[in-house]
Amino acid sequence: MIRSRSPRPLLNLVVTALMLAASLAASPRPTVAAPKVETYKLTNGMDVVVIPDHRAPVVTHMIWYRVGAADEPKGVSGIAHFLEHLMFKSTDKIPMGEFSKIVAKLGGQDNAFTGQDVTSYFQRIAKEKLRTVMEMEADRMVNLRLTEKEVLTERDVIIEERRSRIENNPNAILDEQMDAALYTNHPYGIPVIGWQEEMAKLSQKDALDFYKRYYAPNNAILVVAGDVTGAEVEALAAEIYGKVPANPATLRDPRPQEPAPRAARRVMLSDPRAGKASLHRDYVVPSYTTAAPGEAEAIDLMMKVAADGATSRLYRALVVEQGVASSAGGGYDGAALDGGKLSFYAVAADDVPLDKIESAMDAVLSDIAKNGVTEKELERAKNSYTAEYIYENDNQSNLARRYGWGLATGRTIEQIETWPEAIGKVTADEVKKAAQTYLDIRRSVTGILTPTPATADAGAARPAPAAPLPANRS
Amino acid sequence: MIRSRSPRPLLNLVVTALMLAASLAASPRPTVAAPKVETYKLTNGMDVVVIPDHRAPVVTHMIWYRVGAADEPKGVSGIAHFLEHLMFKSTDKIPMGEFSKIVAKLGGQDNAFTGQDVTSYFQRIAKEKLRTVMEMEADRMVNLRLTEKEVLTERDVIIEERRSRIENNPNAILDEQMDAALYTNHPYGIPVIGWQEEMAKLSQKDALDFYKRYYAPNNAILVVAGDVTGAEVEALAAEIYGKVPANPATLRDPRPQEPAPRAARRVMLSDPRAGKASLHRDYVVPSYTTAAPGEAEAIDLMMKVAADGATSRLYRALVVEQGVASSAGGGYDGAALDGGKLSFYAVAADDVPLDKIESAMDAVLSDIAKNGVTEKELERAKNSYTAEYIYENDNQSNLARRYGWGLATGRTIEQIETWPEAIGKVTADEVKKAAQTYLDIRRSVTGILTPTPATADAGAARPAPAAPLPANRS
Repeated sequence: MIRSRSPRPLLNLVVTALMLAASLAASPRPTVAAPKVETYKLTNGMDVVVIPDHRAPVVTHMIWYRVGAADEPKGVSGIAHFLEHLMFKSTDKIPMGEFSKIVAKLGGQDNAFTGQDVTSYFQRIAKEKLRTVMEMEADRMVNLRLTEKEVLTERDVIIEERRSRIENNPNAILDEQMDAALYTNHPYGIPVIGWQEEMAKLSQKDALDFYKRYYAPNNAILVVAGDVTGAEVEALAAEIYGKVPANPATLRDPRPQEPAPRAARRVMLSDPRAGKASLHRDYVVPSYTTAAPGEAEAIDLMMKVAADGATSRLYRALVVEQGVASSAGGGYDGAALDGGKLSFYAVAADDVPLDKIESAMDAVLSDIAKNGVTEKELERAKNSYTAEYIYENDNQSNLARRYGWGLATGRTIEQIETWPEAIGKVTADEVKKAAQTYLDIRRSVTGILTPTPATADAGAARPAPAAPLPANRS
Repeated sequence: MIRSRSPRPLLNLVVTALMLAASLAASPRPTVAAPKVETYKLTNGMDVVVIPDHRAPVVTHMIWYRVGAADEPKGVSGIAHFLEHLMFKSTDKIPMGEFSKIVAKLGGQDNAFTGQDVTSYFQRIAKEKLRTVMEMEADRMVNLRLTEKEVLTERDVIIEERRSRIENNPNAILDEQMDAALYTNHPYGIPVIGWQEEMAKLSQKDALDFYKRYYAPNNAILVVAGDVTGAEVEALAAEIYGKVPANPATLRDPRPQEPAPRAARRVMLSDPRAGKASLHRDYVVPSYTTAAPGEAEAIDLMMKVAADGATSRLYRALVVEQGVASSAGGGYDGAALDGGKLSFYAVAADDVPLDKIESAMDAVLSDIAKNGVTEKELERAKNSYTAEYIYENDNQSNLARRYGWGLATGRTIEQIETWPEAIGKVTADEVKKAAQTYLDIRRSVTGILTPTPATADAGAARPAPAAPLPANRS
């Protein structure tokens, strides 16, 4: 299923359901009025968000659990995502593997995804079937049945998912290794899908422990967008989800935090499947949830100017003007509970050496840190973000996702809704200050991906895969 | 107090007590017969090792707990070492801060240290005082008293210890950053002393939880070396430690293991206090506990030839022949529960650039991986290790440490005692195979320490210290 840490940039978000894939390709339209969102809290602590949208008789029903891969116990990496898969197995009411088939028979589509901070389940369906999917979702919130056999079968599925998504993709392997080097202490350094060696040992007990600990109405946010009113949803939710008992022990613990970054890091990966050599650079920075007021917005705008698309500084310098890269870009992964990440990349043009590309990238970033961005660039970036935000208002699934993800990572409705205003207030000086503060090489890891060993990989390297360490025999 | 992960090499072991400092400087003597060691298990599960040595009327009394920093809960780094400090506070019988004073009044010396895998407390004292120190040690095994005030006061002490030992030492900072990059999943990547930010939050409850979980006779090894017989110690230990009840829940859990290494890493640290620029390279490899039979011995011998002392390949090539380094060396940290580490370093001569030194180091390592070592080198390395082992037999503290550390990291008495024979059996082919397998750049992190930003540190670096990430505000 889908796994990611953040809704924007979507570079790393792999969408497996037709529904969401279609929704992401929403065509730009003229300005759409902001939705009139209503929120409630049920007596058992469950948050409810209703986003009325009466243009078509359909609804998007989403449950967001405030738990993700970064909340996994030590040595049990992948269990959050594994449980997400297992949630499609059975309950007393739903026969084995029938959940999605029932939704499909009702004319709907469903899926789920797991990130570092959130786990979400959703259906898009005709409005008169809302009660049915709510009942199904409320049922599997606490009544999941797992047999040892189902668990073992599904474990093979997630291991195959890892094989196809990570092991078959040198960029994904590098990304995993860069995260492991970027985070020296925080669990964001552990892949959402899990380390292969730990996935192979995930058990029925691991899944049930995680389920019982974190799946409860008081750890969940219900988001319903579509052809409904707030009153309708409140009544339905109170009736259906309201009878699920709260679990007082369900809130997640604080995660180990990242110490102040102090040394630049590099990761070199050689893989014959790599294609063109490429350069990658990530920086650990605050997220919207952890930043001082206005700071995340400044970072966001800085990244828009620096690296987003063909008009960005990076693309123009490396691809258009110097011709050292065939593509280049980057983004800000800022929708996270504990901290955000900047990512830059450039793919080498022809046989341009990566150190030349790195110098060119560093020059672009140094210039922004030293001289800031122009008023014109800033204005264009603000307009672009504001337009994106408004376009997103037009898309039911994206809207539901905006509120669910924001709330599940510690933001308030007000913060979510006043984002365009907050973006509008950012000054060029604030952007420059953000660049100066956060484009600090000590916060960074640089990734080098080459189809054959690069000079930086010299030494006693061998062509064969590195043998794993033997397991501790004691 | 002293903290380390391994008894050899001692590079990273800081010894604060006169006793151990003196013992480490044991003068070479003619061959000393191997000790006749006796072992028992008390009915409460406590292991007892007695090493008779009747040359002087003194004893070394050590307690080894099978717990270390790598067993700490998530986000509570430093608690193992902090608890070690707090063990010198008070019990109902020992007034606040009097433990070491009582030992000193009895004419003895005492200290303690914490590593990733072990925590050890020891006294060296006249033989007729053995009963007294045993009683004191058995008392604080389960009767420790901690007030909130003592805990807060001592927390300032460990934070100051971190400041003086790590923050004031660019090499120590680099070492910490290299470990963080070398271990992508295993807690060996977290410093024994703890991350500053987490140390500042350690509480009385954290200390007591760790104490109650891990301090019990069935998780401890008693080692007594000196002017005693096995029968004497057995009777005393049964009387004094035997009455301490076992704790069935005390055994440590397996730690998260390291995935197969797949990407070479680099860490660049600039620090104006660094002095001469230096190059460092660590490889993650098996330990004596995790390696296949004979493999750790082959690694050990390879490292002796490659990097130990002025006759080593590395020193001769870099310092003597090419003159690119003012010093160079390395060692194998193989006495660990879950995995070992190779470490190499070279300090730049004059203004020789580090990339030139790195090429020279890589050439030395590549040559060993490709061509192995000569029979003559192997023989000399074996003789040297055997001699060191025999010399160590002459030193009571080192002997006690050899058995305690070995047992606490999962080795058997037989493995500890037949080490010279196992070393003797290693062939040149096995050394070459070890070099080929483990001097694999993908297993490594390379550390670059420069007094001013090196070219590899280019980019948007700023001179000011990197600001820490704000804590999660949710």
